[in-house]
Amino acid sequence: MHESLENFEKGLRNNDPEISPSMIYAYACIKKGVPYCNGAPNLGVESDALVELAGELGVPISGKDFKTGQTLMKTILAPGLKARMLGLEGWYSTNILGNRDGEVLDDSESFKTKEVSKLSVLETILQKDQYPDLYENICHKVSINYYPPRGDNKEGWDNIDLFGWMGYPMQIKVIFLCRDSILAAPIVLDLALFSDLAKRAGGKGIQEWLSFYYKSPMCARGNFPEHDLFIQQMKLKNTLRFVMGDEEITHHEH
Amino acid sequence: MHESLENFEKGLRNNDPEISPSMIYAYACIKKGVPYCNGAPNLGVESDALVELAGELGVPISGKDFKTGQTLMKTILAPGLKARMLGLEGWYSTNILGNRDGEVLDDSESFKTKEVSKLSVLETILQKDQYPDLYENICHKVSINYYPPRGDNKEGWDNIDLFGWMGYPMQIKVIFLCRDSILAAPIVLDLALFSDLAKRAGGKGIQEWLSFYYKSPMCARGNFPEHDLFIQQMKLKNTLRFVMGDEEITHHEH
Amino acid sequence: MHESLENFEKGLRNNDPEISPSMIYAYACIKKGVPYCNGAPNLGVESDALVELAGELGVPISGKDFKTGQTLMKTILAPGLKARMLGLEGWYSTNILGNRDGEVLDDSESFKTKEVSKLSVLETILQKDQYPDLYENICHKVSINYYPPRGDNKEGWDNIDLFGWMGYPMQIKVIFLCRDSILAAPIVLDLALFSDLAKRAGGKGIQEWLSFYYKSPMCARGNFPEHDLFIQQMKLKNTLRFVMGDEEITHHEH
Amino acid sequence: MHESLENFEKGLRNNDPEISPSMIYAYACIKKGVPYCNGAPNLGVESDALVELAGELGVPISGKDFKTGQTLMKTILAPGLKARMLGLEGWYSTNILGNRDGEVLDDSESFKTKEVSKLSVLETILQKDQYPDLYENICHKVSINYYPPRGDNKEGWDNIDLFGWMGYPMQIKVIFLCRDSILAAPIVLDLALFSDLAKRAGGKGIQEWLSFYYKSPMCARGNFPEHDLFIQQMKLKNTLRFVMGDEEITHHEH
Repeated sequence: MHESLENFEKGLRNNDPEISPSMIYAYACIKKGVPYCNGAPNLGVESDALVELAGELGVPISGKDFKTGQTLMKTILAPGLKARMLGLEGWYSTNILGNRDGEVLDDSESFKTKEVSKLSVLETILQKDQYPDLYENICHKVSINYYPPRGDNKEGWDNIDLFGWMGYPMQIKVIFLCRDSILAAPIVLDLALFSDLAKRAGGKGIQEWLSFYYKSPMCARGNFPEHDLFIQQMKLKNTLRFVMGDEEITHHEH
Repeated sequence: MHESLENFEKGLRNNDPEISPSMIYAYACIKKGVPYCNGAPNLGVESDALVELAGELGVPISGKDFKTGQTLMKTILAPGLKARMLGLEGWYSTNILGNRDGEVLDDSESFKTKEVSKLSVLETILQKDQYPDLYENICHKVSINYYPPRGDNKEGWDNIDLFGWMGYPMQIKVIFLCRDSILAAPIVLDLALFSDLAKRAGGKGIQEWLSFYYKSPMCARGNFPEHDLFIQQMKLKNTLRFVMGDEEITHHEH
Repeated sequence: MHESLENFEKGLRNNDPEISPSMIYAYACIKKGVPYCNGAPNLGVESDALVELAGELGVPISGKDFKTGQTLMKTILAPGLKARMLGLEGWYSTNILGNRDGEVLDDSESFKTKEVSKLSVLETILQKDQYPDLYENICHKVSINYYPPRGDNKEGWDNIDLFGWMGYPMQIKVIFLCRDSILAAPIVLDLALFSDLAKRAGGKGIQEWLSFYYKSPMCARGNFPEHDLFIQQMKLKNTLRFVMGDEEITHHEH
Repeated sequence: MHESLENFEKGLRNNDPEISPSMIYAYACIKKGVPYCNGAPNLGVESDALVELAGELGVPISGKDFKTGQTLMKTILAPGLKARMLGLEGWYSTNILGNRDGEVLDDSESFKTKEVSKLSVLETILQKDQYPDLYENICHKVSINYYPPRGDNKEGWDNIDLFGWMGYPMQIKVIFLCRDSILAAPIVLDLALFSDLAKRAGGKGIQEWLSFYYKSPMCARGNFPEHDLFIQQMKLKNTLRFVMGDEEITHHEH
């Protein structure tokens, strides 16, 4: 039903239980011509049917799962370690948070979609197919724990086991005492402004250049999602420069 | 004496005490046509006289101070925080190391040039002139302590005080259990290969595209040094692509 | 069956599946007059039947679950915080270890007895009944994760949320890069020597003065187990002084 | 002048510059029969002259330097490591604090008396003369850095290099996000109450049983100061039990 717009609309008319409220919401937005951004890890707008609709009606869409705390740090650090070709043996991440979000995600069933979204980021950044000696056998673990004393704040603890020249082991540990809403709010504002710009500039369907803001960026069929925060930023900025008619920046020396 | 080649060579003939052994070493290299890379924080090749000589004789030079441990991490993290426009109130860094390097740098006089080299990296990355609200008043402290139990290994501890949306404070703490020589050795190899390539490709004088490897990159007069590891990497890669005749990568969406 | 020696021995003769191999092992030891120490979290010797037998035959027994890494640290820190009447809101502990032990305990079923043993230590140390304002509502979480890169070593991460005068919140974070076997081996030696001494000095049944070595110390019916490392140590030392005929130490000023 | 009361009083009359304001303050207190507690690292009441006066007039005195943050943690952890006979290779401690206290102590001259007070605590706890293999060659470093972003709060970072069975190295790292005044205030209250009690119970001169509250406890000539928080606490409690006519607690098993 999610594979073509026709079937999806048939499902809508029949009240099919396979269609979730977030999909109905997304459908309604697109039909009204309103750009749609998905900040949660649910599927929402990520089906062939809705992507087709957004393409047809010329509505920009993007998603999914805002990149705010520990995953943000991961997509900052991993490109840095990769830039220097430092190998990785393991990456252990745990989160403690005390609000309703933590309470829900502490349940292993609810955590599953989030876990996929959190685990996937290292794959494309590290290109393990190209560098199997360095990145093929990473033990990557992510967990979330409900811990009421942390209240609305969040704490991420990362332990990274890396190795350098001749296999020598090293370790990095990161403690991030952060605040979920404070990190998410400016993303909402940026996405509102840029999605509006995208619409006015003729953008249709998936906006890959907004990957910068997401843990699990949507991309065209056949493409792979970009997770490296700095490539995402370059994509964002050069797309804006292109829209403005400016020259793109390559940083090479002539 | 360091401002023109003529005066420098006069100084050499007179055994002027202002000319250090590392400068004589650099002068000899360049005269012989051998590319020169400075991995230490001393001035070495960084004078108008020697830059002039390298330009005249078509010898690639680069420097200074290999970027290996805590400063490497700093130039990975700072661009990430800046990408998301997270403000900074302070950055406190301390290092413990147990070898001869630590013993020398524990002395506050010897630490001075190193300290300048370590402190400067945040300046150009954060562009405080453009973003005074976020980055004008950073309390940035760096110290090095000789601590024999750490032996040849090194440990860096960073505490970063950042603030987000509406000024809310957050903290990041990083512990880096690293190994100096293991991080430095591959830099030596890369620089040997790339400096040789630069020479064969007609590169003369300062090679800004090798900034990727240095804490305090040399740059042409009037330019500012680039510290952002990811811009340095882009510079390195696009310069290599240019030398090969390949198309440069901009990452924008067409 | 575990409540009287008579029933237990009947069960033994009938090959009752409720009697585990570790209980048979303990029974055999005691019958032979060999002191028995239980370093694992299983019940082993901890039943009325076997305690009765040990009492009758004059065999010293002790247990259970060696106190080595994170729990050792907990019973060092908690008495310290309590000494100064610092309140506790939460204590979050996580462990990563890479050997077979970690692999088994990563499974939530296998972790259950261990978890009870790890969680119980704060109770008697903090005396929440006597200090409800400070210790009644502690959110205490303990988890173990199998993380192969850590190999035979272990890493514990603790986050403690405490509060002081007028409820002001503070935090302590502890990283313990430790080695399980290295911390356990001297305990085995001490227990062998002291259990032998206990036997020669006429000790019968549960040896509470050996609590010092256990996460979940056995104690006489009606007593509560002592977890405070420093009270355990005082108990150990003053019992030894008493056995030697020395005066016990009270540390008061006359 | 500080060695006898007679000379001290002569100095007072001559306005001798060797007599500091804090000494005059202490002298005045004692003369008035008011118990005196010294919470700062200065000498204050710690001279033969003033101890003599306090003894003569029956005034309880105690000091010096309140034990609140990092040093408190040190006297909790060190007895725990010692209890298990874990060796120490090094202990590196650094503090960042942002108030006037930090500003003053950042200056190496002002830090000197504080440093002595902070370094001394490990000596008596570890008894290096008795256990030279474990504790003779500890590299113990303590530093304080003025870091305004931390404001009135304080952060301590400790790195402990320990070794176990067969010399295997392990590490403990502690981050203490604490608040100086919140930790010091209840000490002031306790000392006021207990010093008053001491006076009413006939206590004269140095009150060793109040060592619990100090980084650098005063003790009778010939005695050594006790730093172990748990022995200090036992001393405090058993002294109180003695004053009340209660039996002292020895924790041994009969």
